[in-house]
Amino acid sequence: MNRKGGRRIGVVTAGGDAPGLNAAIRALGRCAIDAGDEVIGILNGWTGLLEEGTCRQLSADDFVGIVSHGGTILGSSRTAALQDEVGIHRLLAGVQEARLDIVVAMGGDGTLKLARKLAEHGLRVIGIPKTIDYDVDYTEICIGFESALSRVVEALDRLHTTAASHHRVMVLETMGRDSGWLATLGGLAGGADMICIPEFQVSIDDVAERLLERRRIGKQSSIVVVAEGCDLKGVFGDAPPLDGVGHPLLARRAIGEHVAVAIERLTGSETRSTVLGHLQRGGSPVASDRVWATRLGAAAADLARSDRRATAVAVRNGEVVEATLSQLTEHRRVVPESLYELSRRTS
Amino acid sequence: MNRKGGRRIGVVTAGGDAPGLNAAIRALGRCAIDAGDEVIGILNGWTGLLEEGTCRQLSADDFVGIVSHGGTILGSSRTAALQDEVGIHRLLAGVQEARLDIVVAMGGDGTLKLARKLAEHGLRVIGIPKTIDYDVDYTEICIGFESALSRVVEALDRLHTTAASHHRVMVLETMGRDSGWLATLGGLAGGADMICIPEFQVSIDDVAERLLERRRIGKQSSIVVVAEGCDLKGVFGDAPPLDGVGHPLLARRAIGEHVAVAIERLTGSETRSTVLGHLQRGGSPVASDRVWATRLGAAAADLARSDRRATAVAVRNGEVVEATLSQLTEHRRVVPESLYELSRRTS
Amino acid sequence: MNRKGGRRIGVVTAGGDAPGLNAAIRALGRCAIDAGDEVIGILNGWTGLLEEGTCRQLSADDFVGIVSHGGTILGSSRTAALQDEVGIHRLLAGVQEARLDIVVAMGGDGTLKLARKLAEHGLRVIGIPKTIDYDVDYTEICIGFESALSRVVEALDRLHTTAASHHRVMVLETMGRDSGWLATLGGLAGGADMICIPEFQVSIDDVAERLLERRRIGKQSSIVVVAEGCDLKGVFGDAPPLDGVGHPLLARRAIGEHVAVAIERLTGSETRSTVLGHLQRGGSPVASDRVWATRLGAAAADLARSDRRATAVAVRNGEVVEATLSQLTEHRRVVPESLYELSRRTS
Amino acid sequence: MNRKGGRRIGVVTAGGDAPGLNAAIRALGRCAIDAGDEVIGILNGWTGLLEEGTCRQLSADDFVGIVSHGGTILGSSRTAALQDEVGIHRLLAGVQEARLDIVVAMGGDGTLKLARKLAEHGLRVIGIPKTIDYDVDYTEICIGFESALSRVVEALDRLHTTAASHHRVMVLETMGRDSGWLATLGGLAGGADMICIPEFQVSIDDVAERLLERRRIGKQSSIVVVAEGCDLKGVFGDAPPLDGVGHPLLARRAIGEHVAVAIERLTGSETRSTVLGHLQRGGSPVASDRVWATRLGAAAADLARSDRRATAVAVRNGEVVEATLSQLTEHRRVVPESLYELSRRTS
Repeated sequence: MNRKGGRRIGVVTAGGDAPGLNAAIRALGRCAIDAGDEVIGILNGWTGLLEEGTCRQLSADDFVGIVSHGGTILGSSRTAALQDEVGIHRLLAGVQEARLDIVVAMGGDGTLKLARKLAEHGLRVIGIPKTIDYDVDYTEICIGFESALSRVVEALDRLHTTAASHHRVMVLETMGRDSGWLATLGGLAGGADMICIPEFQVSIDDVAERLLERRRIGKQSSIVVVAEGCDLKGVFGDAPPLDGVGHPLLARRAIGEHVAVAIERLTGSETRSTVLGHLQRGGSPVASDRVWATRLGAAAADLARSDRRATAVAVRNGEVVEATLSQLTEHRRVVPESLYELSRRTS
Repeated sequence: MNRKGGRRIGVVTAGGDAPGLNAAIRALGRCAIDAGDEVIGILNGWTGLLEEGTCRQLSADDFVGIVSHGGTILGSSRTAALQDEVGIHRLLAGVQEARLDIVVAMGGDGTLKLARKLAEHGLRVIGIPKTIDYDVDYTEICIGFESALSRVVEALDRLHTTAASHHRVMVLETMGRDSGWLATLGGLAGGADMICIPEFQVSIDDVAERLLERRRIGKQSSIVVVAEGCDLKGVFGDAPPLDGVGHPLLARRAIGEHVAVAIERLTGSETRSTVLGHLQRGGSPVASDRVWATRLGAAAADLARSDRRATAVAVRNGEVVEATLSQLTEHRRVVPESLYELSRRTS
Repeated sequence: MNRKGGRRIGVVTAGGDAPGLNAAIRALGRCAIDAGDEVIGILNGWTGLLEEGTCRQLSADDFVGIVSHGGTILGSSRTAALQDEVGIHRLLAGVQEARLDIVVAMGGDGTLKLARKLAEHGLRVIGIPKTIDYDVDYTEICIGFESALSRVVEALDRLHTTAASHHRVMVLETMGRDSGWLATLGGLAGGADMICIPEFQVSIDDVAERLLERRRIGKQSSIVVVAEGCDLKGVFGDAPPLDGVGHPLLARRAIGEHVAVAIERLTGSETRSTVLGHLQRGGSPVASDRVWATRLGAAAADLARSDRRATAVAVRNGEVVEATLSQLTEHRRVVPESLYELSRRTS
Repeated sequence: MNRKGGRRIGVVTAGGDAPGLNAAIRALGRCAIDAGDEVIGILNGWTGLLEEGTCRQLSADDFVGIVSHGGTILGSSRTAALQDEVGIHRLLAGVQEARLDIVVAMGGDGTLKLARKLAEHGLRVIGIPKTIDYDVDYTEICIGFESALSRVVEALDRLHTTAASHHRVMVLETMGRDSGWLATLGGLAGGADMICIPEFQVSIDDVAERLLERRRIGKQSSIVVVAEGCDLKGVFGDAPPLDGVGHPLLARRAIGEHVAVAIERLTGSETRSTVLGHLQRGGSPVASDRVWATRLGAAAADLARSDRRATAVAVRNGEVVEATLSQLTEHRRVVPESLYELSRRTS
């Protein structure tokens, strides 16, 4: 125990930023400070533990007005480089340096796995699931997903009017390198006519055939949603393989643009693509993300006062519950076939 | 069985309108028609069964573009007048007149109870929970609630800036005659400083005391959220009881305005009230309402092909499940104390 | 001249808060500081000149991130109490106390008239027009109006879906005690069927007749927009005059509710009212308010370096120009008949 | 003169779709029909005059509810292919075939120039300026621009939170092949730190220098807005010229991505790009576009009853006025240096 008789709770946000993180930080902070604990913000993701001066004690004033702000007041960074033994030990040293009794880690798969490793090395940690990809298992809620989903749906609402006015095919590329949740639920809610995701392979010929079929029955515009990492057979057609081109731009190539080129080639319909990109992460969190982030953050503050060494919070059956880091990280949550099928049945 | 070898599925939306109903109608309609059934829209709520010419067969074209539209393409009306034996028999006669094999009823407590009574009289019915009050029990999702919640949060975001600029207390009145869900979760997500709901009594003196306490620690503006039916002791102060006044305007009096008057009297702080009213129901559904409405509507179409006589769909553990009408209507879902407490802890 | 060789420019925001003020403060501040002047924020409206410690020097950091924030970082207050000779002299003393060389005043009719009086007493002032009522004359742009207008239109979009679903008349009350701009342009853009404003008298019987006519041609729902101060003959019908009732609530009565009661009485149609109130002022400014506020603020910074004693900025012919305080305050801008007529022709 | 004693007014929307067109069509339609004229919708842009069955008489019902809808109920298409003599004569034949007395053409530079040519061949035409690029001269308002501008600003608001959370440079590419209005005013209103447009050349080294300077003074994130056609010297660095690569994707390359690559190379800062693309055109029009589109459409209906042979409507000094097609098409409106400078001074 440290001075004031309370704990020193470190809090870190890592991986891509997501709307709702500030609501979780605020709830955690207010509940913990209220209970006599200190809350130490680890700045700029896990790397904040590696450099001096990048931890800072948070006070009540830090939480005023942030519930509606996107991003994270703590800053964030990617975690990949720290997952090895060397990284783990540097982080543990940083925790000791900052005299933290426990670390609350808000993040997705990478962050929670890192938290798990740190726990295996004796650190007290509490994980909070956050990812706009919705691919953390076990929990019904991942902070940020509903906000990102709402951006996808809003984009589709807008693309519909322009697609209809010009009798075009519009392709929207959503985030989701390994996971089709944003594309599937976004497409379902946004009235997409075809959805391509990593979990289920379709061929570009199937896509074209469906669009042609729509044209035959008089539908002159269509909307196709593709996840960043969709499994789309034949999309590159006879084009030279991109990796061989060597142009730095192509390192940033977007699948949505390839899909649009291929659709235009196969159907003759004018086709345009839009890559939603970072617009999915930014801005004010929707109500649902704020509510659940608040509930999860408060639950983490409560758990910090227990004797658990390594644990996590999650949402199950519409309630906040305690979970293990293994439950959250053992598997990736994938889109089930029934849901993917539903998106076809209702389109 | 009727012509085409399929069922004639009636669909009715009753009670207050809610964003997401059209997504449910669309999913039900597309899945049912796809399976060879006919879908008959009962217009303007249950009363559509009582008058000639107020049922109409829906076709694929009726569903185009409606997923993003608020309200209900079928129209709606209140159900109170039809809950007695006379009403029930008139409705059953209407069902027979329209030659419906089954009725899918989308509504809140009143609608689902009426559906249950109709079922007890032999009608095949399937209930779908819809209410912006979120007070239907058993199900984690009620169509419309998330959209209404987002309106409350958006309103609070706006009131914050004007409260801060003028050092005022702003009172926001939300819907919720018997239920504090919108006020509690809205206040939680919108950074309210005090929340008053039907489930837990507070006194206006407590409210005033808390606001004065905030002023003492330098917070010059505050936000108070009150549900329409909040249990707020002493709010009318020494004012004459309203029912005795006899002015027609007062039949439409809003509690929020009373609260503002009382706060100004007790604290001396300039206080303004806003009654959100019908703005909570209107407009385009948020992503989450569209997703779940689609899933619930499709599930109802599937159940219509089963041999169930009286059943319902609901969301449990983050999945669409079958439920009984009793499970949905036996109790009202109320805000639990822990959640109400959380709104105080994090404010 | 003071230290640094620059001017000490005071800046005050007074009257009701409006989206866009922060953009104007930011542009004024950045341009002035860039040019070597000092910028002193007068806090909480003109009253900030009367109390010690309510002026504070602004620095570059104060402007970061505020362009998107509603309200005013300086705070505001009403000006009515300061318009007499005593008030003027107290303010002049405050200016001297704060050693201000010039005051930039952002506000509506009241604020700009006060600025004019201060100028007549020798103070150097620059006025910037700001009002969500749009009733400041001469200028094509008043900071805040476009944002408030967008709230009105958004509200109407939402009310349409619920009106249509329930075959109701919906009454929306907008701000505008003496001015019908918000109601007229809001109604025009939001598809209102009838608009009542202070500038043109209509009778409640006319309103009812028009709604009945709509019903006769099969339009089952209607939207009526009324400005707070609309001139609506006969709206109180046989109800007792409100001022005699003496109930404190009635001091806050809203005309929209009276209109709804009267319409229901005269047409038999179910009618509901919504008072938009403070939601019109709050929240993030729309793009246009940010652009013009920025341009006006920067122009004021430039004028502060001139030798003008009393002047103002305005928008004419789509450009920022210099104006006199008289031009802005001599008359109130009222809705012209042709525009009001247009709202009837296009509805 | 045709039956009913009125004129047959054709209406066409051409070029890229833009929010607000439906408001203009509605106002034109209602006012014209009200005055006894017939309104004939020319479908899918000018090409609607070339094929049989692509003109259709509009009635009051066609205008219900469309004021809030994006796109155009008439459809649109590009006009480039019709600008030669052959095209003109085919169009004139189409006008005769459809027995139109006059054509109201809503569009940007291309459409209005085509209208001018048709007028030179004897057709009665009225032009209405519409372009999200805001590059039509003489008029203060182009339908669609304010809505597109609001999308840009909304995107920047979102990118700020993610830029700040990750200490990144975010590049946003807006539309504007020849015109920097969206980028300049969007950047001004959205708090961009650097803006690159076609009208003023800057070098990528200048951009990098400014970003490095920001980093030196502690600003760890920056926002750069680039118009699609910005004049950015040195942005391709040592990369192979793109046209030589021959990959079909590269025909759709976006300048924003090149800028991000170059900034990362020159500054070492992590940089991400977002191409806003079609999201700028779609969705519901903002209030201002609805108001002016309504006023312009109504004015066109009035002009159609005059004896003018070739004319146009525009906004000057905040009022709708008559203009000539030459005034609108002789020059392109470009961003003046003072405005571009302002964006630097206030950032």
